[in-house]
Amino acid sequence: MSQGKSKKNYLVPEPALRRMPCYLAYLKLARKEGLKHISSTLIARDMGVDPTQVTKDLSYTSIVGKTRVGYEVEPLIDELESFLGFTVVDEAYLFGVGSLGRALLHDHGLKQFGLKVVAAFDVNPDVVGRKIGGVPIYHFDEFKNMSNSGVQIGILTVPVDKSQYVASSMIEGGIKAIWNFTPVRIKVDDDVVVQNTSLYAHLAVMFNRLKSNNAKMLK
Amino acid sequence: MSQGKSKKNYLVPEPALRRMPCYLAYLKLARKEGLKHISSTLIARDMGVDPTQVTKDLSYTSIVGKTRVGYEVEPLIDELESFLGFTVVDEAYLFGVGSLGRALLHDHGLKQFGLKVVAAFDVNPDVVGRKIGGVPIYHFDEFKNMSNSGVQIGILTVPVDKSQYVASSMIEGGIKAIWNFTPVRIKVDDDVVVQNTSLYAHLAVMFNRLKSNNAKMLK
Repeated sequence: MSQGKSKKNYLVPEPALRRMPCYLAYLKLARKEGLKHISSTLIARDMGVDPTQVTKDLSYTSIVGKTRVGYEVEPLIDELESFLGFTVVDEAYLFGVGSLGRALLHDHGLKQFGLKVVAAFDVNPDVVGRKIGGVPIYHFDEFKNMSNSGVQIGILTVPVDKSQYVASSMIEGGIKAIWNFTPVRIKVDDDVVVQNTSLYAHLAVMFNRLKSNNAKMLK
Repeated sequence: MSQGKSKKNYLVPEPALRRMPCYLAYLKLARKEGLKHISSTLIARDMGVDPTQVTKDLSYTSIVGKTRVGYEVEPLIDELESFLGFTVVDEAYLFGVGSLGRALLHDHGLKQFGLKVVAAFDVNPDVVGRKIGGVPIYHFDEFKNMSNSGVQIGILTVPVDKSQYVASSMIEGGIKAIWNFTPVRIKVDDDVVVQNTSLYAHLAVMFNRLKSNNAKMLK
Protein backbone atom coordinates (compact mmCIF):
# COMPACT_ATOMS: atom_id res chain seq x y z
CA MET A 1 0.00 0.00 0.00
CA SER A 2 1.24 3.41 -0.88
CA GLN A 3 -0.54 5.19 1.98
CA GLY A 4 2.19 5.72 4.54
CA LYS A 5 1.68 6.50 8.17
CA SER A 6 3.15 9.95 7.78
CA LYS A 7 0.05 11.12 5.91
CA LYS A 8 -1.92 12.26 8.91
CA ASN A 9 -5.56 11.46 9.24
CA TYR A 10 -6.86 14.58 10.94
CA LEU A 11 -9.55 16.37 9.01
CA VAL A 12 -8.05 19.85 8.77
CA PRO A 13 -10.20 22.79 7.57
CA GLU A 14 -9.66 23.35 3.86
CA PRO A 15 -8.55 27.01 4.08
CA ALA A 16 -5.85 26.03 6.60
CA LEU A 17 -4.74 23.12 4.41
CA ARG A 18 -4.52 25.38 1.38
CA ARG A 19 -2.35 27.87 3.24
CA MET A 20 0.08 25.19 4.42
CA PRO A 21 1.94 24.79 1.11
CA CYS A 22 2.39 28.58 1.22
CA TYR A 23 3.98 28.35 4.68
CA LEU A 24 6.14 25.54 3.39
CA ALA A 25 7.36 27.58 0.42
CA TYR A 26 7.98 30.55 2.69
CA LEU A 27 9.94 28.47 5.22
CA LYS A 28 12.12 26.98 2.50
CA LEU A 29 13.02 30.50 1.41
CA ALA A 30 13.81 31.41 5.03
CA ARG A 31 16.03 28.33 5.33
CA LYS A 32 17.84 29.34 2.14
CA GLU A 33 18.55 32.69 3.78
CA GLY A 34 20.10 30.87 6.74
CA LEU A 35 17.32 31.33 9.30
CA LYS A 36 17.23 28.71 12.05
CA HIS A 37 14.24 30.09 13.97
CA ILE A 38 11.26 32.10 12.88
CA SER A 39 8.38 33.72 14.78
CA SER A 40 4.73 33.49 13.82
CA THR A 41 4.72 37.30 13.77
CA LEU A 42 7.37 37.39 11.06
CA ILE A 43 5.66 34.66 9.02
CA ALA A 44 2.37 36.54 9.36
CA ARG A 45 3.90 39.88 8.33
CA ASP A 46 5.71 38.48 5.28
CA MET A 47 2.71 36.49 4.14
CA GLY A 48 0.15 39.19 4.85
CA VAL A 49 -1.97 37.09 7.20
CA ASP A 50 -2.89 37.38 10.87
CA PRO A 51 -0.35 36.03 13.44
CA THR A 52 -3.08 34.14 15.33
CA GLN A 53 -4.04 32.46 12.07
CA VAL A 54 -0.44 31.34 11.53
CA THR A 55 -0.29 29.88 15.04
CA LYS A 56 -3.64 28.16 14.58
CA ASP A 57 -2.81 26.76 11.11
CA LEU A 58 0.54 25.39 12.27
CA SER A 59 -1.02 23.90 15.40
CA TYR A 60 -2.53 21.15 13.21
CA THR A 61 1.00 19.79 12.83
CA SER A 62 2.85 18.36 15.80
CA ILE A 63 5.34 21.24 15.89
CA VAL A 64 4.93 23.87 18.59
CA GLY A 65 6.60 27.27 18.57
CA LYS A 66 8.54 28.42 21.63
CA THR A 67 8.05 31.77 23.35
CA ARG A 68 10.56 34.38 22.15
CA VAL A 69 12.42 31.81 19.96
CA GLY A 70 9.56 30.93 17.63
CA TYR A 71 9.53 27.86 15.40
CA GLU A 72 12.61 25.88 14.49
CA VAL A 73 12.70 26.23 10.69
CA GLU A 74 14.16 22.84 9.71
CA PRO A 75 11.85 20.56 11.77
CA LEU A 76 8.84 22.65 10.76
CA ILE A 77 9.67 22.17 7.06
CA ASP A 78 10.02 18.41 7.58
CA GLU A 79 6.80 18.22 9.55
CA LEU A 80 4.82 20.26 7.00
CA GLU A 81 6.06 18.17 4.08
CA SER A 82 5.13 15.00 5.86
CA PHE A 83 1.83 16.42 7.15
CA LEU A 84 0.80 17.53 3.66
CA GLY A 85 1.51 14.07 2.29
CA PHE A 86 4.33 15.27 0.05
CA THR A 87 6.97 12.88 1.41
CA VAL A 88 5.10 9.65 0.70
CA VAL A 89 4.45 8.95 -2.96
CA ASP A 90 0.87 7.95 -3.80
CA GLU A 91 0.21 6.30 -7.12
CA ALA A 92 -2.47 7.64 -9.42
CA TYR A 93 -4.21 6.85 -12.70
CA LEU A 94 -4.99 9.59 -15.17
CA PHE A 95 -8.15 9.44 -17.28
CA GLY A 96 -8.26 11.43 -20.50
CA VAL A 97 -5.07 12.16 -22.40
CA GLY A 98 -6.28 15.30 -24.15
CA SER A 99 -4.55 18.61 -23.98
CA LEU A 100 -4.69 19.09 -20.20
CA GLY A 101 -4.15 15.40 -19.40
CA ARG A 102 -1.09 15.37 -21.60
CA ALA A 103 0.16 18.52 -19.89
CA LEU A 104 -0.20 16.90 -16.47
CA LEU A 105 1.72 13.84 -17.66
CA HIS A 106 4.54 16.22 -18.54
CA ASP A 107 4.50 17.80 -15.09
CA HIS A 108 7.09 15.94 -13.08
CA GLY A 109 6.49 18.43 -10.28
CA LEU A 110 3.56 16.30 -9.15
CA LYS A 111 5.89 13.52 -8.05
CA GLN A 112 7.86 15.96 -5.95
CA PHE A 113 4.62 16.64 -4.11
CA GLY A 114 3.77 13.01 -3.53
CA LEU A 115 1.77 12.02 -6.60
CA LYS A 116 3.06 9.58 -9.19
CA VAL A 117 0.94 8.87 -12.25
CA VAL A 118 1.60 5.22 -13.06
CA ALA A 119 -0.81 4.77 -15.97
CA ALA A 120 -3.12 6.81 -18.15
CA PHE A 121 -6.27 5.81 -20.02
CA ASP A 122 -7.90 7.09 -23.19
CA VAL A 123 -9.79 5.75 -26.20
CA ASN A 124 -7.94 7.72 -28.85
CA PRO A 125 -5.85 5.34 -31.03
CA ASP A 126 -3.32 8.16 -31.54
CA VAL A 127 -2.24 7.97 -27.92
CA VAL A 128 -3.19 4.46 -26.73
CA GLY A 129 -0.05 2.29 -26.60
CA ARG A 130 2.25 5.31 -26.42
CA LYS A 131 4.07 6.78 -23.43
CA ILE A 132 3.92 10.43 -22.47
CA GLY A 133 6.26 11.75 -19.81
CA GLY A 134 7.24 8.14 -19.19
CA VAL A 135 3.66 7.13 -18.37
CA PRO A 136 2.13 4.29 -20.43
CA ILE A 137 -1.26 5.00 -21.98
CA TYR A 138 -3.77 2.18 -22.09
CA HIS A 139 -7.17 1.87 -23.74
CA PHE A 140 -9.91 2.82 -21.29
CA ASP A 141 -11.38 -0.70 -21.64
CA GLU A 142 -8.24 -2.08 -20.02
CA PHE A 143 -8.90 -0.15 -16.83
CA LYS A 144 -11.25 -2.81 -15.50
CA ASN A 145 -8.40 -5.33 -15.63
CA MET A 146 -6.11 -2.94 -13.78
CA SER A 147 -8.62 -1.74 -11.24
CA ASN A 148 -8.54 -2.58 -7.54
CA SER A 149 -4.76 -2.66 -7.81
CA GLY A 150 -4.35 -0.48 -4.73
CA VAL A 151 -4.27 2.74 -6.74
CA GLN A 152 -6.75 5.00 -4.94
CA ILE A 153 -6.30 8.29 -6.75
CA GLY A 154 -7.67 9.13 -10.21
CA ILE A 155 -7.06 12.31 -12.16
CA LEU A 156 -10.06 13.22 -14.33
CA THR A 157 -9.22 15.16 -17.49
CA VAL A 158 -11.79 13.77 -19.93
CA PRO A 159 -14.21 15.85 -22.05
CA VAL A 160 -17.23 17.27 -20.26
CA ASP A 161 -19.70 14.80 -21.78
CA LYS A 162 -17.68 11.83 -20.49
CA SER A 163 -16.92 13.15 -17.00
CA GLN A 164 -19.71 11.52 -15.02
CA TYR A 165 -19.47 8.20 -16.85
CA VAL A 166 -15.71 7.94 -16.42
CA ALA A 167 -15.91 9.10 -12.79
CA SER A 168 -18.45 6.35 -12.04
CA SER A 169 -16.26 3.74 -13.75
CA MET A 170 -13.25 4.96 -11.77
CA ILE A 171 -15.12 4.45 -8.51
CA GLU A 172 -16.31 1.01 -9.58
CA GLY A 173 -12.65 0.19 -10.21
CA GLY A 174 -11.59 1.11 -6.70
CA ILE A 175 -10.66 4.79 -7.03
CA LYS A 176 -11.31 6.58 -3.73
CA ALA A 177 -10.23 10.12 -4.57
CA ILE A 178 -10.88 11.98 -7.82
CA TRP A 179 -8.85 15.03 -8.76
CA ASN A 180 -11.43 16.58 -11.09
CA PHE A 181 -10.02 19.04 -13.62
CA THR A 182 -13.30 19.16 -15.57
CA PRO A 183 -15.88 21.87 -14.90
CA VAL A 184 -18.51 19.16 -14.32
CA ARG A 185 -19.86 18.71 -10.80
CA ILE A 186 -19.57 14.96 -10.69
CA LYS A 187 -21.82 12.97 -8.40
CA VAL A 188 -20.21 10.43 -6.11
CA ASP A 189 -20.98 8.60 -2.88
CA ASP A 190 -19.98 10.19 0.40
CA ASP A 191 -16.98 7.94 0.84
CA VAL A 192 -15.30 9.22 -2.32
CA VAL A 193 -13.20 12.39 -2.20
CA VAL A 194 -13.59 14.85 -5.06
CA GLN A 195 -11.10 17.67 -5.39
CA ASN A 196 -12.27 20.15 -8.02
CA THR A 197 -9.53 22.10 -9.75
CA SER A 198 -10.98 23.94 -12.69
CA LEU A 199 -8.14 25.95 -14.21
CA TYR A 200 -10.61 27.67 -16.48
CA ALA A 201 -12.74 28.81 -13.55
CA HIS A 202 -9.65 30.51 -12.14
CA LEU A 203 -9.04 32.02 -15.56
CA ALA A 204 -12.59 33.40 -15.58
CA VAL A 205 -12.03 35.03 -12.19
CA MET A 206 -8.76 36.58 -13.38
CA PHE A 207 -10.36 37.91 -16.59
CA ASN A 208 -13.18 39.47 -14.61
CA ARG A 209 -10.84 41.19 -12.14
CA LEU A 210 -8.59 42.47 -14.93
CA LYS A 211 -11.52 43.89 -16.91
CA SER A 212 -12.87 45.49 -13.78
CA ASN A 213 -9.49 47.16 -13.10
CA ASN A 214 -9.14 48.26 -16.73
CA ALA A 215 -12.59 49.83 -16.56
CA LYS A 216 -11.64 51.68 -13.36
CA MET A 217 -8.51 53.05 -15.06
CA LEU A 218 -10.60 54.55 -17.84
CA LYS A 219 -12.80 56.45 -15.45
CA MET B 1 -5.70 45.79 -27.68
CA SER B 2 -6.86 42.31 -26.94
CA GLN B 3 -9.42 43.32 -24.31
CA GLY B 4 -12.70 43.14 -26.19
CA LYS B 5 -15.90 44.75 -25.17
CA SER B 6 -17.55 41.43 -24.58
CA LYS B 7 -15.46 40.84 -21.46
CA LYS B 8 -17.79 42.49 -18.99
CA ASN B 9 -16.50 44.83 -16.36
CA TYR B 10 -18.82 44.03 -13.47
CA LEU B 11 -17.06 42.84 -10.36
CA VAL B 12 -18.85 39.57 -9.77
CA PRO B 13 -18.36 37.70 -6.44
CA GLU B 14 -15.68 35.05 -6.83
CA PRO B 15 -17.79 32.03 -5.77
CA ALA B 16 -20.39 32.96 -8.41
CA LEU B 17 -17.71 33.40 -11.05
CA ARG B 18 -16.20 30.05 -10.19
CA ARG B 19 -19.56 28.34 -10.54
CA MET B 20 -20.23 29.86 -13.96
CA PRO B 21 -17.91 27.58 -15.94
CA CYS B 22 -19.76 24.68 -14.27
CA TYR B 23 -23.10 26.04 -15.50
CA LEU B 24 -21.55 26.46 -18.93
CA ALA B 25 -20.33 22.86 -19.02
CA TYR B 26 -23.72 21.66 -17.80
CA LEU B 27 -25.61 23.70 -20.40
CA LYS B 28 -23.42 22.38 -23.21
CA LEU B 29 -24.31 18.86 -22.14
CA ALA B 30 -28.00 19.82 -22.08
CA ARG B 31 -27.68 21.26 -25.59
CA LYS B 32 -26.06 18.04 -26.77
CA GLU B 33 -29.08 16.19 -25.43
CA GLY B 34 -31.30 18.45 -27.53
CA LEU B 35 -32.74 20.68 -24.80
CA LYS B 36 -33.88 24.11 -25.98
CA HIS B 37 -35.07 25.42 -22.61
CA ILE B 38 -34.04 24.65 -19.09
CA SER B 39 -35.33 25.72 -15.68
CA SER B 40 -33.20 26.95 -12.80
CA THR B 41 -34.79 24.16 -10.72
CA LEU B 42 -33.46 21.49 -13.07
CA ILE B 43 -30.00 23.09 -13.24
CA ALA B 44 -29.97 23.31 -9.44
CA ARG B 45 -31.04 19.70 -8.99
CA ASP B 46 -28.51 18.28 -11.45
CA MET B 47 -25.67 20.38 -10.08
CA GLY B 48 -26.55 19.91 -6.43
CA VAL B 49 -26.93 23.60 -5.64
CA ASP B 50 -29.82 25.77 -4.48
CA PRO B 51 -32.26 27.05 -7.19
CA THR B 52 -32.13 30.61 -5.81
CA GLN B 53 -28.34 30.48 -6.11
CA VAL B 54 -28.63 29.46 -9.77
CA THR B 55 -31.00 32.37 -10.47
CA LYS B 56 -28.76 34.78 -8.62
CA ASP B 57 -25.53 33.58 -10.28
CA LEU B 58 -27.04 33.75 -13.75
CA SER B 59 -28.51 37.19 -13.07
CA TYR B 60 -25.01 38.65 -13.41
CA THR B 61 -25.29 37.91 -17.12
CA SER B 62 -27.80 39.77 -19.28
CA ILE B 63 -29.94 36.67 -19.78
CA VAL B 64 -33.19 36.41 -17.85
CA GLY B 65 -35.17 33.22 -17.41
CA LYS B 66 -38.88 33.20 -18.21
CA THR B 67 -41.58 31.91 -15.90
CA ARG B 68 -42.55 28.32 -16.69
CA VAL B 69 -40.23 28.21 -19.76
CA GLY B 70 -36.93 28.78 -18.00
CA TYR B 71 -33.75 29.82 -19.75
CA GLU B 72 -33.18 29.44 -23.48
CA VAL B 73 -30.18 27.11 -23.60
CA GLU B 74 -28.38 28.40 -26.71
CA PRO B 75 -28.38 32.15 -25.88
CA LEU B 76 -27.39 31.38 -22.27
CA ILE B 77 -24.38 29.38 -23.47
CA ASP B 78 -23.32 32.23 -25.77
CA GLU B 79 -23.80 34.80 -23.06
CA LEU B 80 -21.88 32.81 -20.43
CA GLU B 81 -18.95 32.21 -22.78
CA SER B 82 -18.77 35.86 -23.59
CA PHE B 83 -19.37 36.94 -20.00
CA LEU B 84 -16.55 34.72 -18.74
CA GLY B 85 -14.17 36.17 -21.29
CA PHE B 86 -13.75 32.88 -23.15
CA THR B 87 -14.77 34.24 -26.58
CA VAL B 88 -12.17 36.99 -26.81
CA VAL B 89 -8.57 35.81 -26.86
CA ASP B 90 -6.23 37.60 -24.46
CA GLU B 91 -2.52 37.29 -25.01
CA ALA B 92 -0.25 36.23 -22.17
CA TYR B 93 3.41 35.78 -21.37
CA LEU B 94 4.59 32.78 -19.37
CA PHE B 95 7.49 33.10 -16.94
CA GLY B 96 9.39 29.97 -15.97
CA VAL B 97 9.60 27.03 -18.37
CA GLY B 98 10.15 24.33 -15.77
CA SER B 99 8.00 21.27 -15.42
CA LEU B 100 4.67 23.04 -14.83
CA GLY B 101 5.40 25.91 -17.21
CA ARG B 102 6.21 23.43 -19.94
CA ALA B 103 3.01 21.55 -19.17
CA LEU B 104 0.95 24.71 -19.54
CA LEU B 105 2.61 25.48 -22.88
CA HIS B 106 1.38 22.08 -24.02
CA ASP B 107 -2.16 22.81 -22.90
CA HIS B 108 -3.94 24.15 -25.95
CA GLY B 109 -7.13 24.11 -23.92
CA LEU B 110 -6.20 27.51 -22.54
CA LYS B 111 -6.72 29.14 -25.92
CA GLN B 112 -10.17 27.65 -26.14
CA PHE B 113 -10.93 29.53 -22.93
CA GLY B 114 -9.58 32.84 -24.13
CA LEU B 115 -5.91 32.75 -23.19
CA LYS B 116 -3.13 32.58 -25.76
CA VAL B 117 0.45 32.34 -24.55
CA VAL B 118 2.46 34.28 -27.14
CA ALA B 119 5.91 34.06 -25.54
CA ALA B 120 7.66 32.39 -22.63
CA PHE B 121 10.71 33.46 -20.64
CA ASP B 122 13.36 31.51 -18.78
CA VAL B 123 17.10 31.68 -18.10
CA ASN B 124 17.87 28.02 -18.77
CA PRO B 125 20.01 27.70 -21.95
CA ASP B 126 18.40 24.28 -22.57
CA VAL B 127 15.06 25.91 -23.37
CA VAL B 128 15.89 29.51 -24.39
CA GLY B 129 15.65 29.82 -28.18
CA ARG B 130 13.43 26.75 -28.48
CA LYS B 131 9.70 26.51 -29.03
CA ILE B 132 7.38 24.44 -26.87
CA GLY B 133 3.79 23.90 -27.96
CA GLY B 134 4.48 26.45 -30.70
CA VAL B 135 5.42 29.14 -28.19
CA PRO B 136 8.87 30.76 -28.56
CA ILE B 137 11.01 30.85 -25.43
CA TYR B 138 13.16 33.92 -24.84
CA HIS B 139 15.81 34.71 -22.25
CA PHE B 140 14.26 36.49 -19.28
CA ASP B 141 16.56 39.48 -19.96
CA GLU B 142 14.74 40.02 -23.24
CA PHE B 143 11.46 40.63 -21.46
CA LYS B 144 12.28 44.28 -20.82
CA ASN B 145 12.49 44.83 -24.57
CA MET B 146 9.14 43.11 -25.10
CA SER B 147 7.36 44.69 -22.17
CA ASN B 148 4.60 47.27 -22.47
CA SER B 149 3.57 45.57 -25.69
CA GLY B 150 -0.07 45.47 -24.67
CA VAL B 151 0.19 41.99 -23.14
CA GLN B 152 -1.44 42.38 -19.73
CA ILE B 153 -1.47 38.81 -18.44
CA GLY B 154 1.52 36.94 -17.06
CA ILE B 155 1.62 33.31 -15.98
CA LEU B 156 4.04 32.75 -13.10
CA THR B 157 5.59 29.27 -12.97
CA VAL B 158 9.10 30.07 -11.71
CA PRO B 159 10.80 28.44 -8.69
CA VAL B 160 9.72 29.67 -5.29
CA ASP B 161 12.88 31.70 -4.65
CA LYS B 162 12.39 33.69 -7.86
CA SER B 163 8.64 34.27 -7.55
CA GLN B 164 8.61 37.73 -5.97
CA TYR B 165 11.47 39.05 -8.08
CA VAL B 166 9.95 37.86 -11.35
CA ALA B 167 6.48 39.08 -10.33
CA SER B 168 7.87 42.55 -9.62
CA SER B 169 9.68 42.58 -12.98
CA MET B 170 6.49 41.49 -14.74
CA ILE B 171 4.61 44.41 -13.23
CA GLU B 172 7.38 46.85 -14.16
CA GLY B 173 7.02 45.54 -17.70
CA GLY B 174 3.33 46.31 -17.87
CA ILE B 175 1.73 43.07 -16.68
CA LYS B 176 -1.60 43.84 -14.97
CA ALA B 177 -2.76 40.35 -14.02
CA ILE B 178 -0.61 37.52 -12.68
CA TRP B 179 -1.80 33.93 -12.79
CA ASN B 180 0.35 32.65 -9.94
CA PHE B 181 0.96 28.90 -9.95
CA THR B 182 3.65 29.15 -7.25
CA PRO B 183 2.80 28.64 -3.58
CA VAL B 184 4.37 32.04 -2.80
CA ARG B 185 2.06 34.84 -1.68
CA ILE B 186 3.46 37.50 -3.96
CA LYS B 187 3.15 41.16 -3.00
CA VAL B 188 1.77 43.53 -5.60
CA ASP B 189 0.11 46.95 -5.71
CA ASP B 190 -3.66 47.15 -5.48
CA ASP B 191 -4.09 47.74 -9.20
CA VAL B 192 -2.55 44.38 -10.10
CA VAL B 193 -4.71 41.26 -10.15
CA VAL B 194 -3.24 38.08 -8.67
CA GLN B 195 -4.99 34.78 -9.27
CA ASN B 196 -3.46 32.07 -7.11
CA THR B 197 -3.75 28.54 -8.48
CA SER B 198 -1.59 26.24 -6.45
CA LEU B 199 -2.12 22.75 -7.83
CA TYR B 200 -0.11 21.34 -4.97
CA ALA B 201 -2.34 23.00 -2.39
CA HIS B 202 -5.29 21.20 -3.99
CA LEU B 203 -3.27 18.01 -3.89
CA ALA B 204 -2.64 18.51 -0.18
CA VAL B 205 -6.37 18.92 0.45
CA MET B 206 -7.14 15.76 -1.52
CA PHE B 207 -4.46 13.73 0.32
CA ASN B 208 -5.84 14.89 3.67
CA ARG B 209 -9.43 13.97 2.80
CA LEU B 210 -8.40 10.57 1.43
CA LYS B 211 -6.34 9.73 4.52
CA SER B 212 -9.20 10.82 6.72
CA ASN B 213 -11.62 8.55 4.83
CA ASN B 214 -9.16 5.65 4.88
CA ALA B 215 -8.79 6.07 8.65
CA LYS B 216 -12.58 6.04 9.07
CA MET B 217 -12.80 2.80 7.07
CA LEU B 218 -10.38 1.11 9.45
CA LYS B 219 -12.41 2.00 12.52
